[in-house]
Amino acid sequence: MQIAVIGREDCSAEEYEAAETIGYLIAGNHETVCCGGLGGVMEAACRGAKEGGGRTVGILPDTGEGNPYLDVVIRTGMGHARNVVLVNSADAVIAVGGGYGTLSEIAVSLKTDKPVFGLSTWKIEGVFVCATPEEAVILAVRAVRLSRPSRSPRDPGGPS
Amino acid sequence: MQIAVIGREDCSAEEYEAAETIGYLIAGNHETVCCGGLGGVMEAACRGAKEGGGRTVGILPDTGEGNPYLDVVIRTGMGHARNVVLVNSADAVIAVGGGYGTLSEIAVSLKTDKPVFGLSTWKIEGVFVCATPEEAVILAVRAVRLSRPSRSPRDPGGPS
Amino acid sequence: MQIAVIGREDCSAEEYEAAETIGYLIAGNHETVCCGGLGGVMEAACRGAKEGGGRTVGILPDTGEGNPYLDVVIRTGMGHARNVVLVNSADAVIAVGGGYGTLSEIAVSLKTDKPVFGLSTWKIEGVFVCATPEEAVILAVRAVRLSRPSRSPRDPGGPS
Amino acid sequence: MQIAVIGREDCSAEEYEAAETIGYLIAGNHETVCCGGLGGVMEAACRGAKEGGGRTVGILPDTGEGNPYLDVVIRTGMGHARNVVLVNSADAVIAVGGGYGTLSEIAVSLKTDKPVFGLSTWKIEGVFVCATPEEAVILAVRAVRLSRPSRSPRDPGGPS
Repeated sequence: MQIAVIGREDCSAEEYEAAETIGYLIAGNHETVCCGGLGGVMEAACRGAKEGGGRTVGILPDTGEGNPYLDVVIRTGMGHARNVVLVNSADAVIAVGGGYGTLSEIAVSLKTDKPVFGLSTWKIEGVFVCATPEEAVILAVRAVRLSRPSRSPRDPGGPS
Repeated sequence: MQIAVIGREDCSAEEYEAAETIGYLIAGNHETVCCGGLGGVMEAACRGAKEGGGRTVGILPDTGEGNPYLDVVIRTGMGHARNVVLVNSADAVIAVGGGYGTLSEIAVSLKTDKPVFGLSTWKIEGVFVCATPEEAVILAVRAVRLSRPSRSPRDPGGPS
Repeated sequence: MQIAVIGREDCSAEEYEAAETIGYLIAGNHETVCCGGLGGVMEAACRGAKEGGGRTVGILPDTGEGNPYLDVVIRTGMGHARNVVLVNSADAVIAVGGGYGTLSEIAVSLKTDKPVFGLSTWKIEGVFVCATPEEAVILAVRAVRLSRPSRSPRDPGGPS
Repeated sequence: MQIAVIGREDCSAEEYEAAETIGYLIAGNHETVCCGGLGGVMEAACRGAKEGGGRTVGILPDTGEGNPYLDVVIRTGMGHARNVVLVNSADAVIAVGGGYGTLSEIAVSLKTDKPVFGLSTWKIEGVFVCATPEEAVILAVRAVRLSRPSRSPRDPGGPS
């Protein structure tokens, strides 16, 4: 399963730390971290996931290399439209803080009935407000496991 | 100049009427109406623009035909990512009511510094709240004319 | 109906002249010229269409202004993926010369069963080889009129 | 590094076998297989890669699940425009047979200066014609290693 972690590139120290914890916990649950592939919250989530031995995917707006913690780099070259590809690819979404870009991802998530869990983010009806990184990950993992059948034949080895 | 009118397909009768007036007034100002190309607010804006003798562009999520009031049909085949193409193509944005799709367009507009004028829409910092269709169109037309140099050599005939 | 004219930005003088004639003839047939919105063959087709009193649409890879002969500017911000939006939006495609970008548009056209007419372009099975701009436009116009029902209720005024 | 394997969904048995060998060899070289995520050549390359203990990425045109051998599923929801995302994401491209969709990917690859290695595919100037899966993989791996600096800090664990 793929859990998107979304938030600003120029995030606060608290947001960075929260996102890193979220990435670490997603990895501990053997799920993949997806993100927009750049710095800030995106980098923090990937860094945490790699510390936890997990897999990371960055879906970039450009055709560059993204942050240094990406296992898979998707170079859309499509600017903000990559936000839609990210949301489409996610089984659940966790928002940490966030500006207008994050808001667009929350909106597309809710439009497409993806569960969204928020930590100090936009107050939008439909977002599950969480108090801690732990709560956000527990709820997101539960949501993805309920929403889709197991992919065991697809991914025999699990996350590395 | 191109002014996007955004809002729900399943809009209320009041929203439909407001969008139709907005389209009519945009046409009266010799600007082009852009929209998502489908029904509801999108159709109403185009219908109003055609009543006013203006030009309409629909940027569709699919590869279909869109509503019956489109002069130009852009078939993106890209689902919700067409929202980004619409916002990118607009010089200003007018939101009428709206659900999560509209919220995603407002967010991308603000992310990319496009002026957004709202009528009974999402309360998001950065959106100029308008009381009437007339106010929204006056402000949007003024914004686009201030923001970009005249395109007179490009469009010798003006809107038909 | 919308006819795409595709070809290189750095085209030859012969290609420019052929594309200008093609745009002029499309306008004379009261159809809309769509293109990638930049220079070379794209500009020539739009220039010809405006000389013929027709309507032009440029579907840009970036979020710029495109060539000076565009009535409608679609700013995809999606790089080469705009080629797919262009082909999806066209009822028929005319290729004039062309490099790898043009080849990608021809390929997507054939993949999606759009009729493609070629003037000194890639030799790909499925492309109708034409000897003159006149032949290409006559065949393209006939193809679009056969392929889709009339849109008279949509476009009451016709091209300006 | 990410190597795209492209080709038809309804491929021949020979093409399926060749793509499976290519996937297996890419995995043996510790590189990631990227593909369009569907059946035929795409599935075969992923199946081979998983047999070889490698990592697979499917960049889908829709928002579905793709073939059963994908580690990472990118759901673009963008139809044929996903071909551009796939090519942008690849450091090198190997084509096995292929129809018009494959031709569009070859064209975008050459347009963006990506090295393309072909096995019984379109004869297009710029494609390196290979006689065997082994030759294609050796040349593609060499090309990607020459073209980009090592990503060792990015991917500490290497492919699983």
